Amino acid sequence: MTFTLDPRLENDTYTIAELPLCRVLLMNDARYPWAILVPRRPGITEVFALNQAEQRQFWEEGTRLGEAMMTAFKGDKLNVATLGNVVSQLHLHVVIRRQGDDSWPGPVWGQGCPLAYADGALDATREQLSALCAELTRALS
Amino acid sequence: MTFTLDPRLENDTYTIAELPLCRVLLMNDARYPWAILVPRRPGITEVFALNQAEQRQFWEEGTRLGEAMMTAFKGDKLNVATLGNVVSQLHLHVVIRRQGDDSWPGPVWGQGCPLAYADGALDATREQLSALCAELTRALS
Repeated sequence: MTFTLDPRLENDTYTIAELPLCRVLLMNDARYPWAILVPRRPGITEVFALNQAEQRQFWEEGTRLGEAMMTAFKGDKLNVATLGNVVSQLHLHVVIRRQGDDSWPGPVWGQGCPLAYADGALDATREQLSALCAELTRALS
Repeated sequence: MTFTLDPRLENDTYTIAELPLCRVLLMNDARYPWAILVPRRPGITEVFALNQAEQRQFWEEGTRLGEAMMTAFKGDKLNVATLGNVVSQLHLHVVIRRQGDDSWPGPVWGQGCPLAYADGALDATREQLSALCAELTRALS
């Protein structure tokens, strides 16, 4: 069994980078800097189904990328969540929140409609997130 | 500076147990088996503000308690999240979701109104969660 990204995740995101365990995606929603981390392990729907080393790696990649994104995107609060009620393939939301953003102080899920990135903003955000992932990969190896 | 639980968390929950790092609370909302883990460290609002060992402990306590709750409460999906847009004191939501529950498949935050536990159900749930925490404490030490 090989890893394949869920088609709904593929449809809603841009692929940014591969960390040691997780593929990093950028959610196509310009309202928030929003990354999604998907461990490249087939058939996994819960964090506790990963082995112990992978669980640590999963949370470490999410936490460290979140910290780097908070600085780069000047966030007020980091939201980190694994839900999976709709798309069961294990994935971690890492969302930068700012006071006064479209859903503040509520959660981002199921609030309003995604706002697709305009071309220029998309390129800039992809580059920024990509650079953070490259730096994190160096730090983790 | 000593650890004090945020008064809003105190108001919305029952205290269940102390894991090595986190206080475990039961959300007073009978719609979902819903635990909240609060690391007993003062002044912390983000996971990445904990030291490396504490970060690992934080995620491990949350993941393992979630796994145990999934079995005990016969869940369909585990939701794990640290948001903190309203209450900034770092806390981790560990929520057992079942297909067809009040917010399924949406997130639990900001959906409808909390349904306070009736006395008998409260005692039963407290005892169940308390037993899981005791077992986890033994496993972690």
